[in-house]
Order: sequence, then C-alpha cells, then structure tokens
Amino acid sequence: MKKSIGIHMPVYPAPVLIIGNYDEKGKPNVMAAAWGGICCSVPPCITISLQKIRYSYNNIVDRKAFTVNIPSEKYVKESDYFGMVSGREHDKLSITNLTPMRGEKVDAPYIEEFPVSIECKLLQTIELGTHVMLVGKVVNTLADEECLTCDNYPDPEKVRPIIFTPKYRRYYALGADLGEAFHMGRFFMK
Amino acid sequence: MKKSIGIHMPVYPAPVLIIGNYDEKGKPNVMAAAWGGICCSVPPCITISLQKIRYSYNNIVDRKAFTVNIPSEKYVKESDYFGMVSGREHDKLSITNLTPMRGEKVDAPYIEEFPVSIECKLLQTIELGTHVMLVGKVVNTLADEECLTCDNYPDPEKVRPIIFTPKYRRYYALGADLGEAFHMGRFFMK
Repeated sequence: MKKSIGIHMPVYPAPVLIIGNYDEKGKPNVMAAAWGGICCSVPPCITISLQKIRYSYNNIVDRKAFTVNIPSEKYVKESDYFGMVSGREHDKLSITNLTPMRGEKVDAPYIEEFPVSIECKLLQTIELGTHVMLVGKVVNTLADEECLTCDNYPDPEKVRPIIFTPKYRRYYALGADLGEAFHMGRFFMK
Repeated sequence: MKKSIGIHMPVYPAPVLIIGNYDEKGKPNVMAAAWGGICCSVPPCITISLQKIRYSYNNIVDRKAFTVNIPSEKYVKESDYFGMVSGREHDKLSITNLTPMRGEKVDAPYIEEFPVSIECKLLQTIELGTHVMLVGKVVNTLADEECLTCDNYPDPEKVRPIIFTPKYRRYYALGADLGEAFHMGRFFMK
C-alpha cells in the first residue's frame, strides 16, 4: 500500500558526475554533479544542473565547455570531496593528487585517472530556480583502454561507476547483472 | 592511459524511470525513460527526455502531467517491456498485470506495485533534436510503506532500483554500500 510522503525526489539511481572546467586564470577545476544525465540522442547531449553561485558555473559559461568524468568506485572519497568544497578556495585536483589533462576537443580539462571522460560544448542554459540546466553537446569521449569491451565501448563492470541516492545521501556500487535491455521484455510479447 | 573512442555517452548509471500518463480516452499508459533525473532543487523538478513520436508525448503535453515511477528490480522484465512497445497498440499495464492508480495531485496514473511514484506537473518543454526535454514540477510523492526508513523516506536498499547502462544495454541491481555522502570527502580536508 502506497502513501503520500510529501514532496520528495527519491529518483534512484542518481549518477555521480565529476564536471571539469578551467577558471579565468586557466586553473583546472572540478565539481560533483548528481543532477544530470543524457538528455538527447541526436545531437548527443548531456545536461547537468548547477547553482549559479558555484565556481564552476561562470567557468563553464565563459569557456562554453565542460567535461563529464565518470569516477570508478575506488575514487568515491575524492568524488565526495569534490562536492564539499569550492574551487574558489581549494585546488581540488592537487589536493586529491589527480591529474588534469587538456581536453582534445574542448576548452576544459578531464581527469586522467577516471575511466570515462566526455567532452561537451555548452549549447544552452535553462534557468529553473535554484538550479540552471546546462546542456552540452558531446564532441568526444575518452576511455581507459583497460575498461573497454572488444567493441571499444566502456564495460560498466570494469568502469565500476558510483551510484548516488538523493537526500538519503549514500553511495553504492554497481550490483548484480539483471539482464539484457530491449530483450527481457519479450516475455510479455506474444 | 585514456584514448578517444569517438562520440559516445557512457553516462553510468542511468535510471529506469517508468512514466505514467493518460491518453486522450483516459486509458492509463506507461513508457520507460532512461534519459532523465532531478534537474532543480527549488522548485523541485525532474526532467525526462522523450521523442515526439512516442505515444506518451502528446498525452503528457495535453494533460500537463506525468508520474515518475521507480521500479524495483523484481519488475525488470515489465520495465524493459514498457520501453519496447507502444501504448498506441498495447495496453501495457493490463498485459503486465500491474495496477494503475489515479494520481492524487495530477491528471496522470501511477503504478501501485512500484515502491516509489512521483507526481509531476509539466512546467516546460525544451526541444533539442530527436528528443524534447519535459520539465515537471514535483507536487507529491508516494511510497510503499514497507520501503520507508523511520524518517519516512524511501530506503534505496528496500526500493531496489534498477540501473541502466546506455548503449551497453544491460540492467544492474544496486550493489554494496560505499559510504556516506558529504562525509567521506572529509578525508581530504585539513
């Protein structure tokens, strides 16, 4: 039996996306975003939602570029830290001993140690309230060779992404394989 | 060592969101959306991306309402099926023997058997290309009493949400608890 619990957003799973950008002096900066994901297939676009007060916000708007880095679970402490302090006061990549690399196609840095990095050009900003949606067009994707399938695509079981649970505020690992998408549903097709 | 793999979006994890809506005759309909998630904290908003050709698209735009239902892993076959066929030709809820309930605050149905259902009023549509982002304002949240914590909030370990991996096309369960958010990062704070 369901009951109303008020206005909440237990949208499970939420991702842990580490957003790379350069500040006005060219210093590499990162932040953690859990409000975000794919928003269009063609053109390939990702949206992330930021508060305007975030240090990353002006950086991204000024350079019209950001990267979306997928941390593996072994970097859960680093990823959490990226969401706790501001790049205005802290050089987060130096402190965590991670390596910023210059994007190949955009004016933003990606994190070498994370298994997947997606380079985005800023397409649109949409103001909603506390948060502004930034829509970025994907122009290049980088992946650690060790996490690739034979088809040259990141294997989630090797990437080991982190799963966030909004408001409940815990991180989880990827669990058991539940089956093949666009296939299991055939059970209901005569 | 990272290498470029072209233009891809391995944004792991992606959610499995089952979107409830009524068609023009008032028949309850559902679809699966993996492009979506929270996009603003205040007002509390969720975005989902749909193709205009989807049966759900006009239903949602006409009634300015939809629900976001979080399936638990035991409904992975049903959820997959919801993304494989159209409500134009199939009564998906009858075929899967799931129960549509009239939304308490919006003109859209939710699924009784799924542990979490979030009622949304359509706020905005944003055209991007193949997909249109629909932004909905959350006006009510329903949860199965059995999945609630003592704080009356859905416990992800009881909800057992499904994790989708784009293009790789597999579903996963929630895995091991990796720790507390906004806490583990203190490791890097002096």
